[in-house]
Amino acid sequence: MKVIDGGVTAAKGFKAASTAAGIKYKDRKDMLLIYSDSPCTSAGVFTSNVVKAAPVMWDKAIVDDIDAVHAIVGNSGIANACTGKEGEDICKKTAGYVASLLDIPEKSVLVASTGVIGMQMNMDPIRKGIDKMITELDDTIEAGAGAAKAIMTTDTHSKEMAVQFDISGTTCTMGALAKGSGMIHPNMCTMLSFITTDVAISHDLLRKALKKVVVDTFNMISVDGDMSTNDSLMIIANGEAGNKEIITEDDDYKCFEDALFTICREMAKKLAGDGEGATALFTAHVYNAQTKEDARTLAKSVICSSLTKAMIYGHDANFGRILCALGYSGADFDPNKIELSIESSKGSVLLYKNGDPLEFDEDYATAILSEKEVIANVNMNAGTEEATAWGCDLTYDYVKINADYRS
Amino acid sequence: MKVIDGGVTAAKGFKAASTAAGIKYKDRKDMLLIYSDSPCTSAGVFTSNVVKAAPVMWDKAIVDDIDAVHAIVGNSGIANACTGKEGEDICKKTAGYVASLLDIPEKSVLVASTGVIGMQMNMDPIRKGIDKMITELDDTIEAGAGAAKAIMTTDTHSKEMAVQFDISGTTCTMGALAKGSGMIHPNMCTMLSFITTDVAISHDLLRKALKKVVVDTFNMISVDGDMSTNDSLMIIANGEAGNKEIITEDDDYKCFEDALFTICREMAKKLAGDGEGATALFTAHVYNAQTKEDARTLAKSVICSSLTKAMIYGHDANFGRILCALGYSGADFDPNKIELSIESSKGSVLLYKNGDPLEFDEDYATAILSEKEVIANVNMNAGTEEATAWGCDLTYDYVKINADYRS
Repeated sequence: MKVIDGGVTAAKGFKAASTAAGIKYKDRKDMLLIYSDSPCTSAGVFTSNVVKAAPVMWDKAIVDDIDAVHAIVGNSGIANACTGKEGEDICKKTAGYVASLLDIPEKSVLVASTGVIGMQMNMDPIRKGIDKMITELDDTIEAGAGAAKAIMTTDTHSKEMAVQFDISGTTCTMGALAKGSGMIHPNMCTMLSFITTDVAISHDLLRKALKKVVVDTFNMISVDGDMSTNDSLMIIANGEAGNKEIITEDDDYKCFEDALFTICREMAKKLAGDGEGATALFTAHVYNAQTKEDARTLAKSVICSSLTKAMIYGHDANFGRILCALGYSGADFDPNKIELSIESSKGSVLLYKNGDPLEFDEDYATAILSEKEVIANVNMNAGTEEATAWGCDLTYDYVKINADYRS
Repeated sequence: MKVIDGGVTAAKGFKAASTAAGIKYKDRKDMLLIYSDSPCTSAGVFTSNVVKAAPVMWDKAIVDDIDAVHAIVGNSGIANACTGKEGEDICKKTAGYVASLLDIPEKSVLVASTGVIGMQMNMDPIRKGIDKMITELDDTIEAGAGAAKAIMTTDTHSKEMAVQFDISGTTCTMGALAKGSGMIHPNMCTMLSFITTDVAISHDLLRKALKKVVVDTFNMISVDGDMSTNDSLMIIANGEAGNKEIITEDDDYKCFEDALFTICREMAKKLAGDGEGATALFTAHVYNAQTKEDARTLAKSVICSSLTKAMIYGHDANFGRILCALGYSGADFDPNKIELSIESSKGSVLLYKNGDPLEFDEDYATAILSEKEVIANVNMNAGTEEATAWGCDLTYDYVKINADYRS
């Protein structure tokens, strides 16, 4: 498997377009369209929030029941959540309008929204945006990059990635885009991320792979502990690579799953590192845990703590906060067995072992914590399982961004 | 029941003292001693964090098994958590030193610590502090206020309260102090709060009352979602009021429980409103919920959300964030039944009903949200149960305080 340039247009047969439709803000790209002429198998995982946005409900029905998906249309101005019947109508009309222009079924169009919750959308700018995008659909790298940019809200940079891999002699490609960067604490899945691939794979196995992979990738990141009403991770696969369709869990399936895991892990890390206001990617690696579930719970608790996050921002090796966050995670363990160290490109330092705080060089620890990527390594000495979670620091800018997001 | 001046020295037979012992910081009060000549029945609820501070383990053993408690000694410099065997020794020595000077058993002395985690304490300043406090023990209001002040860490003001109530014709008194104000997200109980009362009550009923009352008071507040290693709420009752000892759940018990509930609720609100960096007390009142547990879960989720907290700081009626936080709380409900309004001393405004966002006057909503106490009222229209949770806004100062707490 190798990383290649590009994103959602990297795989064969996928086109994209984007535009500034003025859905909420002026002169900012806020709509995207992804299209495959060949019908796609699809899979999706969505927010487990009881309050679900209209597009989430629309998409769930499609990825569960429809075998031929052709397009994803998205906007980054208004979330279309808490918008009642009117919101549902707008979602359906949006899909319907795309479908009518591309001459495809309404239910082959996935819809995604992100932005302000509790605000109604207006169809006029949406229609105009779609009209424009339809004429500009293109399979270039630039078209994919434009789509990645159009879905940004408070993200500071766009997020896309593509990989190429071999399935029984056939070169296959998979590309993705994603957006953060606040209200991010996925459970089941996260925010918006779309993956396109030219692999031929059955609906069942596509769903199985996505459900498996999300657990240790998107579900292991958090920016602020708030699980959105709109979280959606969707993959569409058009089969244009020409591989023999993957219908059993054989070596081909394994190759596919590996590629999907890599894409999901890297996109998840990009989201965490670009969390609202973040200055650093904060990784917790828990190993030698008793169970896999313990390892996940412990790692995630560390990166979710407001106090560990503020400590990373302050470059302060106040490691007791990490132990504290492990302690209230819900996993049971013996605190006296833990070994805790911090690590970055500047080196690593052991802070706690056998129930005792260790002497350490504060200046060195501060230097380690001042890098853009900081890791807390936690050896539980209780078993053989491990997990990694990714978050970011808590900064003034997070507060600033969220104190008046709507204005 | 009436509120009276004072705190832990309000009830008959309780003395207090405080001093600047220099445990971590210079020239700042950091130790307190509370003492009753008459032996006290005691009860306590403590952090459920797996990583427990040494004093928490010491105190748990005492409130469970010992019938005659005489003193509480506390410090606000170092938490004595994650300090291994050496930390346990220091805790025992601290109790032992108090006991030797007051001629009481070592196990009649409760110990409490708050401050930096993972740092060892030194006995020298502790002994000197205790020497000084022993000579200054006093039953005045000022002595109680001094103790409330000495236990502060990042609190901006001290927190104490006292009430007087009648038990079958006997006037009884109960007083309390508490400290916040970060790492506050109690589960089982919270931070440090000590309650003294002159009521005569059995050990069993004292424990029963405390366990019951904590659920809807201290356990319903959160400052930052971080559950401390040191959370301790302890009550000691010396019986000096002269009431007939409460040994059954009769009217006298009910009077006592009411007083305890009032003290705990008001102290909990003081803690929430003085959360680190807070500019406002943020209350969520959930009513007409299907079950009591749902109501608690929903109310707490609203005040715990980083995004609702930032919204309160920004005085921005971005109510979708409240719906979002209800949605990921874990409680199940029909979003279309909810009625949501915000309220303060400036008035109230309905924002969401029947699944639709409502039109509202943004300036008026901002005025409501600009007060020092703001309430989100959530009518679930699903039953008859209700609950209230208290939190605070998320501000630049929270980040500032916690980015370099140790320095």
